[in-house]
Order: sequence, then C-alpha cells, then structure tokens
Amino acid sequence: MQNILTYQEAFTSYLKEFKTDREPQSLYAPIDYILNLGGKRLRPVLTLMAAEIFNADYKIALDAALSIEVFHNFSLVHDDIMDDAPLRRGNQTVHEKWDVNTGILSGDAMLIMAYQLFENYEPKTFRDLAKLFSKTALEVCEGQQYDVDFENRDDVTIPEYLKMIEYKTAVLVGAAMQMGAIVAQASKAEQEGIYNFGINLGIAFQLQDDYLDAFGDPKTFGKQVGGDIIENKKTFLYLKALEFSKEEEQRELQHLFSISPTDSSDKVQSVKQLFLSRGAADATTHAIKEYTAKAFSILETLKISDDKKSMLKHFGENLMTRKV
Amino acid sequence: MQNILTYQEAFTSYLKEFKTDREPQSLYAPIDYILNLGGKRLRPVLTLMAAEIFNADYKIALDAALSIEVFHNFSLVHDDIMDDAPLRRGNQTVHEKWDVNTGILSGDAMLIMAYQLFENYEPKTFRDLAKLFSKTALEVCEGQQYDVDFENRDDVTIPEYLKMIEYKTAVLVGAAMQMGAIVAQASKAEQEGIYNFGINLGIAFQLQDDYLDAFGDPKTFGKQVGGDIIENKKTFLYLKALEFSKEEEQRELQHLFSISPTDSSDKVQSVKQLFLSRGAADATTHAIKEYTAKAFSILETLKISDDKKSMLKHFGENLMTRKV
Repeated sequence: MQNILTYQEAFTSYLKEFKTDREPQSLYAPIDYILNLGGKRLRPVLTLMAAEIFNADYKIALDAALSIEVFHNFSLVHDDIMDDAPLRRGNQTVHEKWDVNTGILSGDAMLIMAYQLFENYEPKTFRDLAKLFSKTALEVCEGQQYDVDFENRDDVTIPEYLKMIEYKTAVLVGAAMQMGAIVAQASKAEQEGIYNFGINLGIAFQLQDDYLDAFGDPKTFGKQVGGDIIENKKTFLYLKALEFSKEEEQRELQHLFSISPTDSSDKVQSVKQLFLSRGAADATTHAIKEYTAKAFSILETLKISDDKKSMLKHFGENLMTRKV
Repeated sequence: MQNILTYQEAFTSYLKEFKTDREPQSLYAPIDYILNLGGKRLRPVLTLMAAEIFNADYKIALDAALSIEVFHNFSLVHDDIMDDAPLRRGNQTVHEKWDVNTGILSGDAMLIMAYQLFENYEPKTFRDLAKLFSKTALEVCEGQQYDVDFENRDDVTIPEYLKMIEYKTAVLVGAAMQMGAIVAQASKAEQEGIYNFGINLGIAFQLQDDYLDAFGDPKTFGKQVGGDIIENKKTFLYLKALEFSKEEEQRELQHLFSISPTDSSDKVQSVKQLFLSRGAADATTHAIKEYTAKAFSILETLKISDDKKSMLKHFGENLMTRKV
C-alpha cells in the first residue's frame, strides 16, 4: 500500500495528461477548465486505494478513478446550472464563464467521456464497471431530483432526507471504492463490503458537511459559514431541530426558514442557537458517529489485513474530524 | 426479412412496455412523455432491419434499437432547451411543460438509461455497443456545438456545414445500423460497410430536410414551410446560394438573413427566389442524389443477398422522395 498523498499525486498527474485537444474547443475548453479547478479528489483516491486493498497495483485503477472524477464534475456543472450558482471552488462556474448552453452540452460530453474511460479494460471488467456506473449515475440524478423536490415541500421526513443524501452523495463514494475492487478482480462479497463501507462513510461525510456549514470555524471552513441557513436549506440539522421542537418553536424555526433578510447575521445566530438548544447539533454529531461506526464495523467483516483496515479507518477518521 | 411496418410495430410495442415506474416521478414522467410523443422511429427500425440483414432475428436487436431511440430523445430534450423551442412534434417541449431544470436532469437520466439498455447483451457485445455508442454520442454533442457556433459565424464553409450535419445527424443513423450488425455478430468489414451506408443516407436525409423546409408542400410538410429562412438558419441552400452569387447578390442575401420582419412572407418569397435563381435549389437536390448514390454503391460491396439490397435501396428511395 502507498500512502494517501502518493495516490493523490499519481491521480493529479494522470488527470493533467487527460487533455482534450479535440475540436470544437468551445465544447472541450470548459471541460478542461472544470477538471482543473482543483478539489480534494477524494473519490478517485478511494478508487486507487480500494484497488490496492484488494491486492492490485493502483495504476490499473487510474482510468476508473478518472471516470469517477469526470462524472463528479459533470454533476457539478449541471447542478450549478440548476442551482444558479455563480461560484465553484472560488472560481466562476462553467455556465457563468461561458453560458447555460455550453454548460449543458459540455456536461453531456463529460458524462459520455466518463464511460469511455472504461474502454481500456477487458470486456467483463468493462461491463461490470459500466453497469455499476450507470446504476450509480442514475441514483445521483434521482438524488438531485429529490433535492430539488424537497425545496418546495414542508413535510420532508428524516428517512427521506437520508435517502436523498445517500443517492446524491454516498452512492458515488461507494461506487468509487467498488470500482477499485472490480479492477482488482475482488469477489462479489468483497465488492459489496467495500461498497457498503463507502456508502456509510459517504452519508457520514455529507452529515459532517451539514454540520460544518453551520458550526464550522470561519477561519478554516472553505465556504461561508451559515450558507445553508441563509439559503433556507432543509438540512439534517433543520429537520432534527423541527423534530425536537414543540409547536411554538417549530413555527419560529419555520418562520426563520421562510425569510431572506439582507443582513443575515441575526438570523444565522438565532437558527444556530435553536440547533444547539433543541439538541439538533448533538443529534447530528451523534448520527455522524453512528454512520462512521457502521462503516468501521463493515470493515471488520472484510477479509483484508489489519494494516489495510487501519489505513481505511485512519482515512475515515480524518474525514470525520476535518474542519473543511 | 420482415417488412418495414412489422419492424415499426414491433418497436412501438416494445417501447410501450418500457415504462419507468421508478421514483421520483418528477424525474421519470418527462421521460415517458417525450418517448411517447410519436415520431417516425426511423433509427430504431434501421437497427432491427440491419440485424436481419446480417441473419439474426430482429428481436435480439430490440434493446439496442430502444437505446438509439432513448438517446435520440435525450438529444431532442437538451437541444430544445438550447434552442428555446416551445414545441416538439406539435406538443409542448419538456422544459416548457415542466421547467429547464427538469429538462436537464431528465435528459441526463435518459443518456444513462440508453447505456443500461445494452446490459442484457454478452460482455463482448456489450462493450462493442457501448464503445460505438460513446463515440457516436460524443460526435452528436460536437455536431450540436458546431451548429451553435455557426450561428455567430459569417464564414462557414460548405465542408464545415457537411461535417456539422454528419456529426449532428448522420453518425447516429450509421451507428443505428451498425448496432444491428453488432448484435447479429457481423464481421468488422460488414459493420463498417453498413455504418458507411447509414452515414451517407443520413447526410442525404438531412440535406432533404433543408430542401423540404424551403420547398416542401405546406399541405404535406409537417412543419412551417420557410421556418429555417425565418430563423436565418445557414443551411446548405443558403451556403450554396452565397457561393453561386456575385458580390451584390451576396449582400442582398446576407441582408435578408440579418432581419426578422413581423410578417415574414415577403422575406421567405425573396429568399426562395434567390435559392432557385442562383442554382442553390438544384445544387441541393443534386447533392442529395449524390449522397444517396454513394450509399447505394456501398450497398453493392456488401456480401448480402440481392433481396436485402433492394429492400435497403427501397427504404433509402422512400426517404429521399418523402414529402414530410
């Protein structure tokens, strides 16, 4: 096994070679742009790591890892159009820098290119990768659709919210790891195990995202702290606060999540106070711990060396204690 | 071999079974809607026909045919957003009936579902289909991008225009036929032959579309005659008219293609007159005949029975003498 930095560097230089000199540049330049905006590259690193966990050289997993990253960036480009987002990783989004049509079409091309990255694998591996990819990609679309639908609903339940983040975020983490297992020719049971490890880690990761958005340290958190509150996003924190509140407090919270004051600092403060006093903050950190623990217990069932288990655990723990 | 009507009916009833009961319906209902708006189903019929040409039962090609049709409809949904088109086959477009975000996301889902339709084939066939599909789908995106780019260019050449329609329209016709050959386990040479037959037929088909848009019979032509002229679309007719004109007439034509009068009947009349007098109309019918003849000469090189050749010829001739 290599250390995580090695995987990150190997992936970054592989990505750099993935230049599309094809015409028309009006289609491909936005693709080069978004792929080179940076980011933590967590998903492709997980693919490389999973390949070595199941005794393959990580290098044979580079195309699968790149496919995952290209798909992830496809979903960012299309989601940013839908959310009308001006910025992505501190830079202009594709539809802002170019236009909406370019964003749609370049995104479409990336989705296709993600499939093409499996073409160097043997037919059987190719089919296994493409099948998992299609299933996952469709679930990501469904998750995004639930997210859109939830904006106009007042009766979203906690199980519905958890299903949404599972589809929108966690399945891709699971698939990233299973793809590493597939190229390493791991057994079906091993593939399933590492997929479920990834799913649970992915849900914990997204809940951590919800938590940091409200309670992260402004000095270290990359985005604006309180962003979800300002946008009235119904996160796990909000749904838990509602659940734990009496009728009057529920109305107060619902009111706060219906207004958009110019100066939002008072609103953010009041909401965070409610999240804390109602126990929603604690419930969220508790849920994060539970999903992480579930991931780790799945890890115990895998027939891999203790070294590898502790490496994956270490990776998971780092994710869950992150400040960004 | 069956007759064309049999293929059409078999495909239509197969399509009807392709109902997506999956949740969320907000994602899948628009997909059912666009897939059931009708249309000539030319591409999937060509897939079924090609399978039988190479001695397979057309039924084994139904999934590949459906994939082609789902992809075609994906491209219609996204193109309609880009073109801001209110109507498709006389009905509201998806982004009009729902909204742009639904159009983007449902389109994405259709692109993924098109790949999933290959999953019932053996690994080797699956990979051959998916590879051809990805290559073709990317070219369709490139063709659409060229089409968008050409709107803002005054120096589009005839070869560039031909490349655009080859990518935007013809490659999918070629791929539809090659997919039939792939599931029938035809040789690489046969696959290539039928692909090139389809490409040339597809280009002739698109040029015919350009021609009918200006000179079709309003009684039988489905769309508004003169629509391309009203929208100042630089079609083969326009580019040929420019090529054959002296400077003064070029300026007149360019002027006519820069205005958008409320009552467009005078403009349409003047442009059609120029298309006729400059020889652009003749040049277009000539080009249609040339591409059709090229398709037929490729047909002659294929090692298939004369019956099958004359059936394909019959199909091609029908397409080229169509009034709609």
